[in-house]
Amino acid sequence: MELQLTQALHRNIRHRPADIAYVDDHGRRSWAEFGNRAARLAAALASLAAAKGDRIGILALNGGIYLETMLAAWWLGSAINPVNIRWSVAEIAYSLDDCDTGILLIDESFAPLAPELRARSKALKTLIYTGPGPVPDGMLSYETLIAETPPMADTETGGESLAGVFYTGGTTGNPKGVMLTHNGLLSNTLGALLEEPFAEDETILIAAPLFHLAGACIFLRAFTRGCGTVLLPGFNAAATLRAIATERVTFTLLVPTMIQMLVDHPDLPNHDLSSLRRIMYGASPIGEGLLLRAMARLPAASFIQSYGLTETSGPFTILPARYHTPEGRTPDRLRAAGRPFWGMELRIVDPDGNPVPPGQVGEIAARGPGIMPGYWQKPEQTAAALRHGWLHSGDAGYMDEEGFLFIVDRVKDMIVSGGENVYSTEVESAISKHPDVAACAVFGIPSEKWGEAVHAVVVLKDGAEATGEAIRAHCKTLIAGYKCPGTVEFRDALPVSGAGKTLKHVLREPFWKGRDRRVG
Amino acid sequence: MELQLTQALHRNIRHRPADIAYVDDHGRRSWAEFGNRAARLAAALASLAAAKGDRIGILALNGGIYLETMLAAWWLGSAINPVNIRWSVAEIAYSLDDCDTGILLIDESFAPLAPELRARSKALKTLIYTGPGPVPDGMLSYETLIAETPPMADTETGGESLAGVFYTGGTTGNPKGVMLTHNGLLSNTLGALLEEPFAEDETILIAAPLFHLAGACIFLRAFTRGCGTVLLPGFNAAATLRAIATERVTFTLLVPTMIQMLVDHPDLPNHDLSSLRRIMYGASPIGEGLLLRAMARLPAASFIQSYGLTETSGPFTILPARYHTPEGRTPDRLRAAGRPFWGMELRIVDPDGNPVPPGQVGEIAARGPGIMPGYWQKPEQTAAALRHGWLHSGDAGYMDEEGFLFIVDRVKDMIVSGGENVYSTEVESAISKHPDVAACAVFGIPSEKWGEAVHAVVVLKDGAEATGEAIRAHCKTLIAGYKCPGTVEFRDALPVSGAGKTLKHVLREPFWKGRDRRVG
Repeated sequence: MELQLTQALHRNIRHRPADIAYVDDHGRRSWAEFGNRAARLAAALASLAAAKGDRIGILALNGGIYLETMLAAWWLGSAINPVNIRWSVAEIAYSLDDCDTGILLIDESFAPLAPELRARSKALKTLIYTGPGPVPDGMLSYETLIAETPPMADTETGGESLAGVFYTGGTTGNPKGVMLTHNGLLSNTLGALLEEPFAEDETILIAAPLFHLAGACIFLRAFTRGCGTVLLPGFNAAATLRAIATERVTFTLLVPTMIQMLVDHPDLPNHDLSSLRRIMYGASPIGEGLLLRAMARLPAASFIQSYGLTETSGPFTILPARYHTPEGRTPDRLRAAGRPFWGMELRIVDPDGNPVPPGQVGEIAARGPGIMPGYWQKPEQTAAALRHGWLHSGDAGYMDEEGFLFIVDRVKDMIVSGGENVYSTEVESAISKHPDVAACAVFGIPSEKWGEAVHAVVVLKDGAEATGEAIRAHCKTLIAGYKCPGTVEFRDALPVSGAGKTLKHVLREPFWKGRDRRVG
Repeated sequence: MELQLTQALHRNIRHRPADIAYVDDHGRRSWAEFGNRAARLAAALASLAAAKGDRIGILALNGGIYLETMLAAWWLGSAINPVNIRWSVAEIAYSLDDCDTGILLIDESFAPLAPELRARSKALKTLIYTGPGPVPDGMLSYETLIAETPPMADTETGGESLAGVFYTGGTTGNPKGVMLTHNGLLSNTLGALLEEPFAEDETILIAAPLFHLAGACIFLRAFTRGCGTVLLPGFNAAATLRAIATERVTFTLLVPTMIQMLVDHPDLPNHDLSSLRRIMYGASPIGEGLLLRAMARLPAASFIQSYGLTETSGPFTILPARYHTPEGRTPDRLRAAGRPFWGMELRIVDPDGNPVPPGQVGEIAARGPGIMPGYWQKPEQTAAALRHGWLHSGDAGYMDEEGFLFIVDRVKDMIVSGGENVYSTEVESAISKHPDVAACAVFGIPSEKWGEAVHAVVVLKDGAEATGEAIRAHCKTLIAGYKCPGTVEFRDALPVSGAGKTLKHVLREPFWKGRDRRVG
């Protein structure tokens, strides 16, 4: 089946030309305008020697131009390379060179990085400035290109053609370019819309970054149904509240931390948020306390969890709203990431790839039309991830008898101590509840006796003075003894990635030098 | 993208094993039972030498066994041949032989045809009796096969593999077997569900025959979402009312005539029909008078029109509920068949296949993943229908500026008189309004002066005595003079097909003997 990402654009231009396609900080555009600009940008990219199959990079905050660039790339038959805005210049240059991205669109927030990027990247040839104000030296102007280039005809590219290279990882080794196809992204979109339909007159708020599939997938769903999108440059609680009220937003995607900032914001009572009917959340389960507060303060909204990976073309499991209501909620179910969309299959496997019974922890594996064909020019990593037709996620979890998925840890962060599985996340959660603790990281270190022993690195709050023994004693009140850290080490800070993730492997490696640690 | 029709069955067995899959006149079954029975039937069919790719025929009224047979065929990797229950034995035998269908499942209503079928069909080897009571001589028992054959593993067949051969036509020449694939049927299902989502807890009533895509498509939508299906052996207003009330049906598909019988039924006020939220209708637009009556008597229901062909894997346009409400309704829009689902494209073409402007009548053509790969072993008819990647429907219509489709006639029934298009349906509608007229058929006959002249064949009501001149005078009060019949002929009855369609070509042919009539 040959599905095309541009198909919805043609449909929206034909069926609703004057309706709003997007609203951003610079204004709003109709589907007719959006379509015309995308077709002109596609022609401009072609005139800059971009060909069918080439990668087009974009390094920008969320905005309508981001969407136009994605559609122009697809119109031209090329693939988008949406650059992680939190990366260092070295990481960005690596990703541009890795998949040979010669053209990069860049906005005013990132234009200052251009000279260094040019110096470091061999692939980068052309920079297109998408921001307002004067065009920096050596760059082309997005608006001039659009104004001066007549629109081209859609190349009607689709099916298994490459639609994007989405870089992931980077916390361990070099980032990997996840190749995603038109069919893959659209099957994810259709699967999601079966579960959580969008009516044509909905307004969808995107605060999650578009370079990430969390944001991009929400756009694709809105776009497929012809719904208008409201774009925030990034998440900000006050701006989100204003946008919901002003644009009468009906649906948004957030992570629990953002929901917390939103519902605890002092301005909340001053806004009419009655239009907001659904909040989808991901990245982690929602605590019952936060859920209750959110339901009290946003009484019109229902809550839905979703989980997925870049390698699965985005979120592909869902915990529907009915498991969040007072009637349908149980503390256990609320920790579930849900069950797979139609079209996707899920199973939990042991290190040899064999399925394990319900309740048993193993690696989460997935199969279906949304699965990536592979990592860009990384045959070994591709073969490691895609085994026997199943994608191995690197996430550890289990499924209950009814097929609900529970995520417990990253596979490589699981500790096997004395034959027992210890989930680092569970231990970290216990340690974090100690009033003196600001941050912590738990991992396994070699142990003659236990194979691995539980080790904790703890950052205390300013002025706090808890001892290792006090931390251990605290943990014993919350979790089983074998899960409690055998050793506790204090530091001033934890090493973190550009995306803010704790770099646990940096902490762990010195302990394992010269030794072999089998994972997953 | 490799979509599989059995995928939803696995999902429903896993996610909702104890929920109702179907309710019919014989009882109700859960998804777990349904899945087990389909896997056993697949194994039984395999033991009867049915192989992957073979056709499995079924000649039965609607019931759960019909659904089990479809799923078993797909589980085995074979294709279903759902036999038109209104056909003569000669037509049935033709269709079985045409696509080499060796196994036929047959219920108690059609078992009496078996001896004659056996005598006429070369392909037919095995008859499986699906009805209650003693198994007729020479047939196998459906229930015994299921009880005695252990389930087999799903062959996981999908994608572009053949899922069914759906016979169509027969009013002119031999029926043609429309080949439909897993991808095609599922793309239609997903497109329909984007427009009119089914919540997982809905209950879907199928009164339309399952051998027709109108019924089969509704089942596929329900099945894909895990909704339970209520099956009536055929449409019957009283039984439909009872089923809606008893099973708390939320959605059904009817044709306007059935809606009329339902809403005018004397028993209607005695039933609680408050669960019925949506009625989808097809085959023709709904008259405003009937719509108003239906909305008054079924206040909880909204109305949606859909149009499509067997060759498009079923209905693929939709006129949503909002064009039926007092606020959204206009008499013009209410005559529209709607706009295409996501994934399907529509255009109106002239006899050379070139698109015509909005408002101009031409042949309706469609493109997209739902289009059939062709007619079974009919390369010439396939080439005539599929030109330049577009399916030519044989229906005449036009599109307005906003892309809404209006159907005016079958292309071959359009009359070109003095250079003007005359739509036989419009003339028939005018004649039908004469109080003396029971039935009529309008078509073009050769005319020296006009190329074609409008000719009407009229059946009067018992005892009525209207003259041709009176009919012509009546028409002139309703439609333009050039559209009115130049000649009127009275008969006692019109020739009709097994499906109840007027066989206009039988009436028309004598006039055209030895002449050439260019159509479409």
